[in-house]
Amino acid sequence: MTAEEARRRFSESRVARLATADAAGVPHIVPVVFALDGDEIFIAVDRKPKRTTALKRLANVRENPRVALLADGYDDRDWYALWWVRADGVGRVVAPGSPDARRAVALLAARYRQHAEAPPEGPVLVVAVHRWSGWSAR
Amino acid sequence: MTAEEARRRFSESRVARLATADAAGVPHIVPVVFALDGDEIFIAVDRKPKRTTALKRLANVRENPRVALLADGYDDRDWYALWWVRADGVGRVVAPGSPDARRAVALLAARYRQHAEAPPEGPVLVVAVHRWSGWSAR
Repeated sequence: MTAEEARRRFSESRVARLATADAAGVPHIVPVVFALDGDEIFIAVDRKPKRTTALKRLANVRENPRVALLADGYDDRDWYALWWVRADGVGRVVAPGSPDARRAVALLAARYRQHAEAPPEGPVLVVAVHRWSGWSAR
Repeated sequence: MTAEEARRRFSESRVARLATADAAGVPHIVPVVFALDGDEIFIAVDRKPKRTTALKRLANVRENPRVALLADGYDDRDWYALWWVRADGVGRVVAPGSPDARRAVALLAARYRQHAEAPPEGPVLVVAVHRWSGWSAR
């Protein structure tokens, strides 16, 4: 799959999974909603989810900025319909109210009704993607 | 969410996402089908998927055995229905034909029609889970 096609499929996905690792290389993984602008992915930290969980992904990025995000399609009946796309990049955590965080909140509100109704107020993870890749069974 | 409930939800999921990291801590993430037996997760490597991808997850586990797997539920209309469960553990790669690999093939065949029809012939990743955790919006 071309990088362009991988990026397109990622942008059309409503949910992705974020993998980070701490300084010792222990991986961590959570589902995330996101907005994509160019080759930057924006992920907000809600107020609602369990605080320790929210902090773990951010703590990992601060220790080790390399991250990977995955979007995929699974069909239990038809494995020829399976596909996935991956974004490899470098993350940074930006403070609430900063220009990047405000941009993220606007992008997320445009994409998710829930974010429009209750804009996320926490820090924002910005991922600069340096590689789009993917695979499709077909 | 209790560990027991997290394990139950994981066992009932048809697909999960596997996060590994190489020796330098660079995370990698792929969707996987799996079988669970006790606190061990079995993941077979098909012949079909892109060889380099299959090898990357195994190469990572050989370099750095810490892995994390995630199963989750996403509902675009109702974020109160969201949940995820995570298995943190230690992986090992076993050779095709070994007792663990044969056990994996039997478990996967019992769970997936596609694996029953075409038993995976590659190496098998066995993950010993040492922590089940999870979160539910409700």
